[in-house]
This record gives sequence, C-alpha cells and structure tokens, in this order.
Amino acid sequence: MSNETLGELGEFGFIELVQRRLAHPNFLTVGIGDDAAVIALQKPEVVSCVDILVEDQHFKRDFSSAKDIGHRAAAANLADLVAMGAQPLALLLALVAPSDTEVSWLIDLVDGIVEEANLTGAVLIGGDTTRGEKITISITALGQLMQAPVQRSGAKPGDLVIAAGKFGWAEAGLRILQKGFRSPNLLVKAHQRPQVEYQSALAAASALHAMIDVSDGLAQDALHLAKASNVQIDLKTSALSPDELLIEAALAIGADPMDWVLRGGDDHAILATIDSNSAMPTGFRIIGEVFKGEAKVTLDSKELTGQLGHDHFKKN
Amino acid sequence: MSNETLGELGEFGFIELVQRRLAHPNFLTVGIGDDAAVIALQKPEVVSCVDILVEDQHFKRDFSSAKDIGHRAAAANLADLVAMGAQPLALLLALVAPSDTEVSWLIDLVDGIVEEANLTGAVLIGGDTTRGEKITISITALGQLMQAPVQRSGAKPGDLVIAAGKFGWAEAGLRILQKGFRSPNLLVKAHQRPQVEYQSALAAASALHAMIDVSDGLAQDALHLAKASNVQIDLKTSALSPDELLIEAALAIGADPMDWVLRGGDDHAILATIDSNSAMPTGFRIIGEVFKGEAKVTLDSKELTGQLGHDHFKKN
Repeated sequence: MSNETLGELGEFGFIELVQRRLAHPNFLTVGIGDDAAVIALQKPEVVSCVDILVEDQHFKRDFSSAKDIGHRAAAANLADLVAMGAQPLALLLALVAPSDTEVSWLIDLVDGIVEEANLTGAVLIGGDTTRGEKITISITALGQLMQAPVQRSGAKPGDLVIAAGKFGWAEAGLRILQKGFRSPNLLVKAHQRPQVEYQSALAAASALHAMIDVSDGLAQDALHLAKASNVQIDLKTSALSPDELLIEAALAIGADPMDWVLRGGDDHAILATIDSNSAMPTGFRIIGEVFKGEAKVTLDSKELTGQLGHDHFKKN
Repeated sequence: MSNETLGELGEFGFIELVQRRLAHPNFLTVGIGDDAAVIALQKPEVVSCVDILVEDQHFKRDFSSAKDIGHRAAAANLADLVAMGAQPLALLLALVAPSDTEVSWLIDLVDGIVEEANLTGAVLIGGDTTRGEKITISITALGQLMQAPVQRSGAKPGDLVIAAGKFGWAEAGLRILQKGFRSPNLLVKAHQRPQVEYQSALAAASALHAMIDVSDGLAQDALHLAKASNVQIDLKTSALSPDELLIEAALAIGADPMDWVLRGGDDHAILATIDSNSAMPTGFRIIGEVFKGEAKVTLDSKELTGQLGHDHFKKN
C-alpha cells in the first residue's frame, strides 16, 4: 500500500485499516465499527474536551512528520483532560483529508495519536473520516475523575503559582522551522511533539486549587485562570529565566526569548495554584503568587501589556 | 453585531458569546469555559461518537440556512447515539471557519445545533474554534444507556427488518436544490433538516436485536448490519414503494425514485431488526426479513448490485 491514496482505498477501507490497529481494553464495551462506542467508567461521571487542528494553521507537513502531528494533536486534548485532574481513557478522531493523501501518511498519523494516548493509558475508540481540501484533525478526549475536578476558578489569594513543563520551547521550535533551520533539535522537537507532564498533573491533582493547560501562552492562560478565579496572578521573572538553549536560538533569529516564554503557545505545560503550606508536587516548580485584587496577570508586580498570546482569529 | 466577522470579534469573544447562550442543566457538573467539561451520568458508562461535516462536501451555504446546517450536523450525531439505544446528554462542537465569516451566521449555526440537541434532551457543553478556509463542523455526542447497547451485530435469522423514518427524501431534496429548484418544500426540508425518529428508537431499544442509523443509504447501511451480524438481509420492494411526492420529483428531474430510496444518504432513518414474535414498536414499519446465509443485502431475494451508497472518498 506504499503509495496508495485515500481515494483509491475508500472511506470504509481506511476505517477497516485503522480498526485493525486499535487496542480493545476491558473498559471498552463497544469499540470502533458501530454507530457509537461505549466505555465503562469507574464512577458515573465523564470528562470531555475537543480540539481541532487545521493544516497550515496549526501544523505543516513540511515541519512535522505524520506521526509527530498525531502526537501533538492527541497531546493537545490529553493535556486538557489532565489539567482537570482527569485520567484519560479514550479518544475519538474526526479526520478530513484530500482524496490524494497517501494512506501510509494517514496511518502514521493515527499511529502517532495512538502512541500519545498510550502514554496516558488512553485508547482510540472511534471516529469519522471525510474528504476535504485541507487535512483537519479534530480529537475528542474522554476521561474520568478520581477526585473533584480541578477547575480554573479555584485559585485563592496566598496560593503559590506552580508549573510543570517548558514555556516557549514549542514557539522557539516553530520559529526556527519557519526560518528554514532544523536545529537545535530539542527546540524543534518541542514544537513537533510536546512533552506533556501527564503524570505530574494527575499525581498533583488532589492537592491543587486550580489548574490549566497552557496552550495559548503562559500570560494568556494565566489570565484565563486569574479571570475565572477573580484573582491577580503575579509571575516572577526570576523563576521564568529562559534556558540557555532558548536564549541562543532567540539571538540567532533576532527574537526575544522572554517573549517566547510568556507568549509562546503549544507547549502544553501545566499551570496550577496550590496552598503555600502544601508540599510541592513532583514535577512542579514555583513561578509566582496569587494575590487578592483585580483579575489580571502581572510580572514582578508590573502589568503585562500587549498581545498576551494566541487568538486563532485576530491578527497577531 | 449584524455584520461583524469572526476575525473582528476574535476567538475568545466568540466563545464568550456562545457561552452566554448555553443551558447548564443539573447533570452538567462543569460546563463550557474550563479545560474540559464534566457531566454526571446515571450509570458508570458513556456512549460517544463523532461526525465531521465540510462545507461544499456535506452542505452548501446556498442550499441551507446556518440554522438548518446546525440542525443537520447535530442530528447526524444524535441519530448515531439513539441507534445504540443511548439517551443523548451532551454535544461538543469543534468548528473551523474563515475569519470573514459573519458572527451572526455562526450564532445561527450554534442555535441550530442547540435546538436539535434539545429535541433529545441534550445540551452543548464545550468546543473549540479555529480559523480555516472551509467551514468545518465536527460534533461529538455523548450519551448514556438505560439498557444493553443495541449493536449492529445482533440481528438473528428469522428477525423482521424494521425501520423508522424516511428513505430517499434527503437525497431527493439535495438533487432538487442542485437542479436549481426550491420545491417541493417537504423534500427540500428533508435535506436541510432531517427528521430523526429519536423517541421511536429510544422507546424501542430494549426490544431490538440490532439497530443502525442510516446515513450512507439504506442498502449500504443494511449491508453494514448484515456483515456485522453475519446474516442476509432481504428488503421488500412492496414495503419500500416511493411516496408519490418522491416519484413526481424524480420524474421532473429524470431520476429513479427507487434509487433514492435504496441508495440516498443523510435521512438518518433508523434501521433495526426485531424478533418476529415481538410487538411492533411505535413509529416502526416492517421492510424486510433476516435470513441465515452469506452476509449480503437482497431486494426481493435478488442481490443488489452496483454502488450501494455513499463513500466519502471513492468516486461515485
């Protein structure tokens, strides 16, 4: 099937091919191949979220392999689930692709999605495929809670602001690729396949007051959390100093590494707040403090100005 | 906001606008506006499915209002849920739209989705929006079971094949619109906003052996059911005679009305099998019989040949 296209194979042929690659764990009562999938949960409660990625908006086939794109698409959703404190269980994939897309590319994409899901114990359980001009990947993630959901609205004055994962690395990787470079590899990889701190988020969940997946950029998502909790979030420059690798890359392409740290999206780092008397959860570090007052984000007590992060419609 | 575009309003502005329109029933523990939504179920089991519709492939803005498109996109998923015997609870919407799309059009789309969901008692609980060239609507539906799932694989030799809903009407409506006509209104409406027999399917579920949502066409979906159950399904011409309205429309545009009945997609009629000694469920009628033997679909005992229905990739 090396060069076979989706148009040659057909929708049902593709579904059969995908079907054969999927695991069928015990909690999957009805898997792919029926009108809908059925999963068994430990409690009568389900957590769900969806993301949609469009070719050339969110990924470029020149910049990332099909497998990388699959990993990233799945990570975007799985990170949202764990940021609620929810254990991921299942993914649904809705896929648009041109008829001339090679089946092998699409199978790699599915493999990337499945592999990323496996990192969290989740499996792909169903989907839909159709024809369109741009590859479009919509993933729905379903999970279950072992404790109360950790919402954006739970931050309290006096809390510490803590984080797990990198800030600005994915943005740096993207800018490097856009300039036509392919290294440093660690930064390029951070764009292609973000490393989400799934286990850290889940292990910490019961101790946290508030948690959010940082997909739009640290400043933007901290503002989402500040607004939902009606608090001021003060970030500390000293805790956010860009890594040497980031500084050098920024220098090489004339960018501001601190701008990447504060405004770069798609790292899927985990931002949270916790009582200052609690033990620091594994994988997290302190990056700021929560104050009473107007809902806003400050850096060393000074308000952040300008565009905070990414808006998919407004011009940047 | 009459002519405001999505690009002017921005992603977060649009999300806020949608958020204000949504209901927040008791079973919705965490609604739109967090990383993920949380819904409470009556049993620790969730049923889920996804569909993705692309502008000009599945709908045309010339042929259907935004509200109609919303209704149809939601119906495609809700029909899949009830075809498992699952009570719909919640929808997630992943939406791609060009920046110059009018916000009022998108709000009408969301209203159509919400209205269709309400017909089944379900609500919109979250989503994602991003920019792209073609309007693309991916909806995930979540529901719960009050009895064992009704799968495609449960048909038994001797069962009656029964159906609720129209066959060929949506196809007729689409062909009429493609020819530049706007009537008969009943057929055009059947394309724009399918009438799914939600209540009939749910009320019948516990008595049925097998059930499937007919989205690809009667012959094609009957074949899916036949293959999953490893039985022969024989449909009866006498039970499938096209309505006078369908015959006249077909005559007017030189089509075969029986072809619409057998191969037309997107009506979202419900096809099921039931023990021949069971009482006929409300809203259903007998259209055939299940036989032991090779998995295939026959019409009056003669095998159906040619393209059975719609494949989104293969050329028709």
